[in-house]
Amino acid sequence: MKLTPKKIIEFVESLKFDTKTKLIPAVVQDYKDNTILMLAYMNKESLIKTLQTKKMWYYSRSRKKLWMKGEQSGHLQLVKQVYIDCDNDCLLFKVKQVGEASCHTGYRSCFYRKLDSKGNLKIIAKKIFDPKKVYTL
Amino acid sequence: MKLTPKKIIEFVESLKFDTKTKLIPAVVQDYKDNTILMLAYMNKESLIKTLQTKKMWYYSRSRKKLWMKGEQSGHLQLVKQVYIDCDNDCLLFKVKQVGEASCHTGYRSCFYRKLDSKGNLKIIAKKIFDPKKVYTL
Repeated sequence: MKLTPKKIIEFVESLKFDTKTKLIPAVVQDYKDNTILMLAYMNKESLIKTLQTKKMWYYSRSRKKLWMKGEQSGHLQLVKQVYIDCDNDCLLFKVKQVGEASCHTGYRSCFYRKLDSKGNLKIIAKKIFDPKKVYTL
Repeated sequence: MKLTPKKIIEFVESLKFDTKTKLIPAVVQDYKDNTILMLAYMNKESLIKTLQTKKMWYYSRSRKKLWMKGEQSGHLQLVKQVYIDCDNDCLLFKVKQVGEASCHTGYRSCFYRKLDSKGNLKIIAKKIFDPKKVYTL
């Protein structure tokens, strides 16, 4: 996938970013086994950077700035496929997760807790890395 | 999964609904083959109804009201598993999709369009039903 600047702008302009936040949610899925890794938000700039570089860029609502996934940890997400939903207001990216883990807690997926039959949250995965050793902030 | 009212409230109160919209996004995935079917939003009431009935209920931002998935089409979504993400601000539901198709356009998934190598959107699925015959509004 090698997109011209014109095609990138055409695609970005076809989307419905939230009228207030100017963001669009992006679901991120492993391109091989379809595990959902995370959900994050993009503004136009982060989506353009994602399509230009084929690496996932997001907009952090808490830090109010762009960030490239893996910029600290090295756990980049390489874009394999891009989908949009019926309403043009949600994106789906199938990616190759470098280092296997997408979650800053060290788990492969951010969805590592499941409601059990009694209504308690249970951790259903094993940590792939120790966040204290990866994030030095 | 049979949850007591106390456990349902405990779970709902542990989540971070958006401070402005009072909504939380829910990613919906087929429980058998992990296809992502759709993304929609829930408020507290729709989440409580979902956990009580084991059928997916959402909050429609355009119609500003609760809706049960399949209330018109019969294409209910039956809850199989519930996950939350690391930040407590996104839900993942694995469901059994009655009638196979989750999208109101007649496709199985709302993500039926993919960006091709030249930057054009291509429909990558076949319609399961004709929306004109299912929705009579």
